[in-house]
Amino acid sequence: MANAASANVWAVIMAGGAGTRFWPASRARMPKQLLPLAGASSLLAETVRRLAPLVTEDHVVVVTGEHLADGTAAAVPKVPRDQILKEPAPRNTAPCIAWANAFIAKLDPDAVVMVLPSDHFIGDEPAFRGVLARAIESARRGRVTTVGIVPTRPETGYGYIEIGEPIPGTKDTRAVARFVEKPDRATAETFLSGKKHLWNAGMFFFRVKDMTELVAKHLPDVAAGVAKIAASPDALAGVFPTLTSISIDHGVMEKAQGLAVVPGEFGWNDVGSWQSAWELGEKDEHGNALTKDSVAIEAKGNLVRSKKVVALVGVNDLVIVDTDDALLVMPRERAQDVRLVVEQLKQKGRKDLL
Amino acid sequence: MANAASANVWAVIMAGGAGTRFWPASRARMPKQLLPLAGASSLLAETVRRLAPLVTEDHVVVVTGEHLADGTAAAVPKVPRDQILKEPAPRNTAPCIAWANAFIAKLDPDAVVMVLPSDHFIGDEPAFRGVLARAIESARRGRVTTVGIVPTRPETGYGYIEIGEPIPGTKDTRAVARFVEKPDRATAETFLSGKKHLWNAGMFFFRVKDMTELVAKHLPDVAAGVAKIAASPDALAGVFPTLTSISIDHGVMEKAQGLAVVPGEFGWNDVGSWQSAWELGEKDEHGNALTKDSVAIEAKGNLVRSKKVVALVGVNDLVIVDTDDALLVMPRERAQDVRLVVEQLKQKGRKDLL
Repeated sequence: MANAASANVWAVIMAGGAGTRFWPASRARMPKQLLPLAGASSLLAETVRRLAPLVTEDHVVVVTGEHLADGTAAAVPKVPRDQILKEPAPRNTAPCIAWANAFIAKLDPDAVVMVLPSDHFIGDEPAFRGVLARAIESARRGRVTTVGIVPTRPETGYGYIEIGEPIPGTKDTRAVARFVEKPDRATAETFLSGKKHLWNAGMFFFRVKDMTELVAKHLPDVAAGVAKIAASPDALAGVFPTLTSISIDHGVMEKAQGLAVVPGEFGWNDVGSWQSAWELGEKDEHGNALTKDSVAIEAKGNLVRSKKVVALVGVNDLVIVDTDDALLVMPRERAQDVRLVVEQLKQKGRKDLL
Repeated sequence: MANAASANVWAVIMAGGAGTRFWPASRARMPKQLLPLAGASSLLAETVRRLAPLVTEDHVVVVTGEHLADGTAAAVPKVPRDQILKEPAPRNTAPCIAWANAFIAKLDPDAVVMVLPSDHFIGDEPAFRGVLARAIESARRGRVTTVGIVPTRPETGYGYIEIGEPIPGTKDTRAVARFVEKPDRATAETFLSGKKHLWNAGMFFFRVKDMTELVAKHLPDVAAGVAKIAASPDALAGVFPTLTSISIDHGVMEKAQGLAVVPGEFGWNDVGSWQSAWELGEKDEHGNALTKDSVAIEAKGNLVRSKKVVALVGVNDLVIVDTDDALLVMPRERAQDVRLVVEQLKQKGRKDLL
């Protein structure tokens, strides 16, 4: 696999997300990827770290929002500052990837690019890098390739990839039969038992020239816009916000032919809520993921985030997140409902807390 | 009643308590009586405030610990500083009251003294002052008098006073038949239905000369000690810590003859735990006693204390107390178990949090 790690492999990390599902830890200027939700460093820093030795920081491009630029640069200090691309406005993943692709094309026209989300957790990093190497190899041969996660539950919150025939001359690389939207529960059960569907985790691999062609064909206005920006960075503020806001899945992948997928099993978690943070956290013998020096008496299954000493007596399965200006207490199983809090604070005009 | 409020009525407020039941709000240097647990001001300040017009600050003596002197003076700024007596060591209530009595005797040998705890809540203050006036009147006639609270539940956590015959020529003042230790549940039920027992709330009324005599008779070493201290304040540090550590109940009241009791019904609450603080707090329509700007979604019956915005989602009947360096989360019904936390912190050597 090691020869997949060659000088012309680049990683594009999409780090523009502004999630509210980790309020009060996450804020408009401190989104999920900048938080240490699964490990000692931020999810973004972990994402970059675990790529080595396949890709090192000098071949990493991070795309983020202008307002997140400082936080992002601080999270990945070894990534060259001019490789942190700052979107003047969010336009979804297609313009983001098209711009990064055009940026890399100027530096390295023969580059092979992997696009990765910045806010996921990987449990088995050697297995992950093995899958990446296979996907890079497939991309190098001229197929736009994705990695699909082997499902472990009938999840209704993700899109799926239906796998097609094996691709000759590869190890474990298959054709993509089709992309499938988020299924209902019954369909998700069928997918799980049928073993022909993988979770779409938003990881894509391609030669820059292949992506340039695909964008030109399927999103010509985006192609023209990012070409202008690549030629003259001064055009960024005027052009980028006018680009079609569309996902790479809908805008390009679902229309492209000859795609490949490498199935992956490497302890993937999309760190989607405080529930995930609890699942990934280090826990005591009673299932409490606590902070240092906390006291738990007859308390089980709680997640605690705080800088101070937290004492729990007789409470179970709670999420308790304490920041300098806000405190959240809710059952773990209601983790998704933190959005209700964010909505109420918005209605109350408490922008200072968002 | 107004003529009970005469110049020679003094109040002694016992404010040496170092409760741990309100951790993390209460600390060794910030005990319960200095906290605003039921109202806008500290329990101590409320205790002094509600005595007017029966007793005003210039006739108030506060007994506290040396380490609490500054906090105590700040809580009741109108009480003359030299009337804040600082115990060099806690010796229970008998030496405390004997010292205050000797102190007042020097200023006003004909004084009538009421002794009150500093950390209780009174719901009906006019009724309370009416009862005080009756007890002062009884004391003025030469009977050491107490106020007993008419029970509202079969409480096993308090001592009781069994009432005897009506005292002729008084309104609703009875002889004390005997003091009764904390009863078991069955006995407490009998007390409640029998209507012959009152809660002992630690309030006592007497002429200074009567208390001087009683202490001399039943606790001669204490009497000698406080006489020395009253004669020469320099003796305080050497003498006070050597006095017998005993409660006024055991040391004096249970041995005295001819005691009187005035039954009281005035919304008394001993503010014994976070559960009491919730009972006494202002609550929203779902029974939540919240701090300003908090957000409660499908949450009922919670008590929240914090300087920051607290968001609750789907949690019920919790106590959530957030301070600068510690956070407590527990069910209201386990409020007494906060002592378990304090014990654990002690074991861990976290004196900084106690």
